Amino acid sequence: MDFTDLSHLDDGVVERRFTLDGIPGLLWTPPASADASVPLILLGHPGGLEGMHPRLVQRAQSAARSGFASATLELPGSGDRPRIPDFEAARADLGRAMAQGDPLDAVVDRLVLPLVERAAPEWRSLLDDVLALPGIRGPVGISGGFISIGMRLALVEPRIVAASLYAGSFVPASIVEEARRLTVPLHMLLQWDDESHNRQEMLDLFDALGSPEKTLLANLGGHTGVPAHAGEDVARFFERHLR
Amino acid sequence: MDFTDLSHLDDGVVERRFTLDGIPGLLWTPPASADASVPLILLGHPGGLEGMHPRLVQRAQSAARSGFASATLELPGSGDRPRIPDFEAARADLGRAMAQGDPLDAVVDRLVLPLVERAAPEWRSLLDDVLALPGIRGPVGISGGFISIGMRLALVEPRIVAASLYAGSFVPASIVEEARRLTVPLHMLLQWDDESHNRQEMLDLFDALGSPEKTLLANLGGHTGVPAHAGEDVARFFERHLR
Repeated sequence: MDFTDLSHLDDGVVERRFTLDGIPGLLWTPPASADASVPLILLGHPGGLEGMHPRLVQRAQSAARSGFASATLELPGSGDRPRIPDFEAARADLGRAMAQGDPLDAVVDRLVLPLVERAAPEWRSLLDDVLALPGIRGPVGISGGFISIGMRLALVEPRIVAASLYAGSFVPASIVEEARRLTVPLHMLLQWDDESHNRQEMLDLFDALGSPEKTLLANLGGHTGVPAHAGEDVARFFERHLR
Repeated sequence: MDFTDLSHLDDGVVERRFTLDGIPGLLWTPPASADASVPLILLGHPGGLEGMHPRLVQRAQSAARSGFASATLELPGSGDRPRIPDFEAARADLGRAMAQGDPLDAVVDRLVLPLVERAAPEWRSLLDDVLALPGIRGPVGISGGFISIGMRLALVEPRIVAASLYAGSFVPASIVEEARRLTVPLHMLLQWDDESHNRQEMLDLFDALGSPEKTLLANLGGHTGVPAHAGEDVARFFERHLR
């Protein structure tokens, strides 16, 4: 983990840019406090760190108000990372299939499954390195972003003790099956009128989640219309489970 | 409104018993504060004030922590009020129909519609009298209880500006149709594994609610298993809308 840049945000949160085996990432830590070490939230996103940066900063600042550090990593094939021709082709095919109203299952598998397989070990390495830094000890939560990556990490990574999921995403059937084996507390956000995702599939996914403690928070509105109070509810979810 | 009893709870909340045209009711006010007058939450319940009293006190104390007064009224045919033979017969028939797996629509109509017709004007009278007391000014929210009564009141009573609904209840089809005309912000609690209510019907009801601002909070567990954090979320909903 090579740190390349450090800046102080208005509220005293420290933002550090780094690369990890060449992959760009960001780490945010709360203003120095009495706590010798703090819990960590992995901030998921759909790929493209620079475009997501303003929103990621907001989420990191929210986590910092709870006393938590946050970290994120660019996704394979996104942002400044080399494009992956198979991903590009699958993404284009997904767009076409959606426009034409074709069945999506096969192309969702082609797009999402390899991405999960590549990203999950990278985020586990991120976890190794961030938890080796002084002042960050876990426990670890994972927040939002690509729901399939979040669920895979919550399943395979024992250091993750809670996950908040955002339902507006295409989930391969095999990942839904995996989700039945989840055990950590889960919080799932759903936008009731998400224009590009099937509500019933998302409700079925919530139903499938194996965890004995799970909450669905659904709000009226489209994919990008998550209300501010829903973000606050996610913050309280992590306060319950990372303290 | 004739007050019959006054007591101080541990946290300084004042509980007053009253009768309103002979109907028993309860009023709770927060400890004296700098506020000259406070908002009000009507506390819904399934009928039987004495049995519900411990839970109602908890909800009133939660409202008082937000600086809100609370009031409730016995339902027609429940508690110390005279039994209504038609209600008793419908209730028995509902139990039989559930036990036998028979269709419920007709008996739900027979049980719930007359109850809504009788209860709604009583609760509007309650509102008249409570808002005439010094120190209580509104705005008014309605919280939980019989969802059909809550939705009817939220529809016909302009002084109600926000409603939290509990989905575990039988709702006549005509009340679902009414709910399409609701406009106030709504918060609906759903227990995902409610053993006596149909989940899909409750999701369809949420979908039907006409309000432009509505939130569904679903948690794993049975009818009586609403987690504490869901109650806190209801409190925050009212803080957003009654302040």
